Amino acid sequence: MTVKFNNVYVSDSYTIASVYEKDGPLSSCFDKVYDKDLYYGEDTFEVAEEKLLFDSIKKLITKTNLVNKDIDYVISGDLQNQISASDYAMRNIDIPFLGVYGACSTFGLGLLIGSNFIDGKKANNLIVSTSSHNMVAERQFRNPTEYGAPKKKTTTWTATGAASILITNKKGKIRITSATAGIVQDAGITDVNNMGAVMAIAAADTIRRHLNDLKIDASYYDLILTGDLGIYGKKILIDYMNELEIDLSKNYEDCGLILYDINKQNVYSGASGPVCSALVLCSHILKEMEKGKYKRVLFVPTGAIFSPTRVFQKSSIPSIAHAISFEVVI
Amino acid sequence: MTVKFNNVYVSDSYTIASVYEKDGPLSSCFDKVYDKDLYYGEDTFEVAEEKLLFDSIKKLITKTNLVNKDIDYVISGDLQNQISASDYAMRNIDIPFLGVYGACSTFGLGLLIGSNFIDGKKANNLIVSTSSHNMVAERQFRNPTEYGAPKKKTTTWTATGAASILITNKKGKIRITSATAGIVQDAGITDVNNMGAVMAIAAADTIRRHLNDLKIDASYYDLILTGDLGIYGKKILIDYMNELEIDLSKNYEDCGLILYDINKQNVYSGASGPVCSALVLCSHILKEMEKGKYKRVLFVPTGAIFSPTRVFQKSSIPSIAHAISFEVVI
Repeated sequence: MTVKFNNVYVSDSYTIASVYEKDGPLSSCFDKVYDKDLYYGEDTFEVAEEKLLFDSIKKLITKTNLVNKDIDYVISGDLQNQISASDYAMRNIDIPFLGVYGACSTFGLGLLIGSNFIDGKKANNLIVSTSSHNMVAERQFRNPTEYGAPKKKTTTWTATGAASILITNKKGKIRITSATAGIVQDAGITDVNNMGAVMAIAAADTIRRHLNDLKIDASYYDLILTGDLGIYGKKILIDYMNELEIDLSKNYEDCGLILYDINKQNVYSGASGPVCSALVLCSHILKEMEKGKYKRVLFVPTGAIFSPTRVFQKSSIPSIAHAISFEVVI
Repeated sequence: MTVKFNNVYVSDSYTIASVYEKDGPLSSCFDKVYDKDLYYGEDTFEVAEEKLLFDSIKKLITKTNLVNKDIDYVISGDLQNQISASDYAMRNIDIPFLGVYGACSTFGLGLLIGSNFIDGKKANNLIVSTSSHNMVAERQFRNPTEYGAPKKKTTTWTATGAASILITNKKGKIRITSATAGIVQDAGITDVNNMGAVMAIAAADTIRRHLNDLKIDASYYDLILTGDLGIYGKKILIDYMNELEIDLSKNYEDCGLILYDINKQNVYSGASGPVCSALVLCSHILKEMEKGKYKRVLFVPTGAIFSPTRVFQKSSIPSIAHAISFEVVI
């Protein structure tokens, strides 16, 4: 089901990135870069990620000249077990909290829920947030990096950072016009080092349903932007869409190939993690929309919603993608 | 912030319970009981929990004479890392999926989001689901039960089962009239075996804000029902509320003390887990409302939104509670 919105606007965002993101093409786009190390003065990587997420929310509130009571909800999730970066960051933010989880599609899930709240007149202003941290994700989902386990070419590199966006019913330059919630897919893949292949099927299903529901062609959008499929996942998605006679050859990009320069940085098949697509959207794409480069963008973050426990038990890996449509207000 | 709803109704629910729940006072109330063992014919406890959750959704759809395309969303979450019971169960259900996480408050979080969607005219019918499994939770959050680790008196017993509820804009006997989202609290407690104390502060804050926002007394409700505070958490909440001059002595119960008979069953200070409050609400309280025993019930499931990793790192434990108001339609 695709829901249309009449009254949901992007107010502003705050992005925080780290060492690898600073070395990438979007280096100058972030609101803040912590580039010394991956601890940011904290004792553990998990607490470091909490700090990034907390900062992105607090600084967005300051940047928009609001106070806590102006914000109806913070909707947030992240890759840490029990979405802990969000849970723990919210201890010190006196705003109602809705925890969500869609792996690397989390930012899209938050935007979808938030847009429904605002367009349904159930909220005026709310913040959608997410974060990821390379070291936390490697330890939790693969191996601690100290083990030096070799990587496959299809592996992606979890981005480190946090992003928060304020969406509102107050008129602005960019409008969220519709959202299509993902239906869980499973291509039967069990390889945790090939997330692009796992998630491409979910992106294909959601984009197909979005276009069908709205009776539009892919060419309606100046840009269709998946979250973190990487080089191989991107190719697989284009193939899937060709089979559906949907042409993505002209206006399709993947955030995982925008955040890093995969020819210069040693990041295998591209960037990943929930913050990857959130950083690219907030620090780059929305600004290009304001400048007039894109009028209509379909944001489709993808998530491999798997559990290491279930992988050890030989279950195949489910995936999901949510689509959110952004349009410049004319 | 408390949001009022005008047009959200409970359609029906489907509850599945297990061995311990069958031995408790609500034995005859569940739609289905799997009482042979905790595997339900599957190879692992994690897959067993997936099966329970899947069954509760599919059987609710059948029970309500609907088909998948009648349901706009399934909103679900559970205690497994990466909310895996929900993620994996949804592979085989062709309905858009929104993943949420609030530990044992998850069912309340889903009801809050779902009610906002329906009252805001963004959905017509949706299912809210949750599950928990004693063995999965013990292994993930404490110790594998095979270790035989001794338990404290303040420990609670994670319930095993799944519950799904259909909420709708079609008029029915019971209406969801308002919802208050939780603000994350932290009482500074680090003991994972004393969840009642961890969560009581969150219940207190949410109930206080709910009553203040609506300008009503606690006596407005025939029943105020927390999720899984257990014996000690219940006492702490009553103390907190006394300090706030809110009297809970007459109309307050905790689902953790309803699901099991704590005098006869060896469950320490009561039941817990996200399915505890969901089972009590759906299999018992809503039926009592239909029979006329209660006219107004405030459902306040509580969650300790902690991560074992952060506990090992000596962080104190955050908690949250969401309040959902149910009223019999006159």
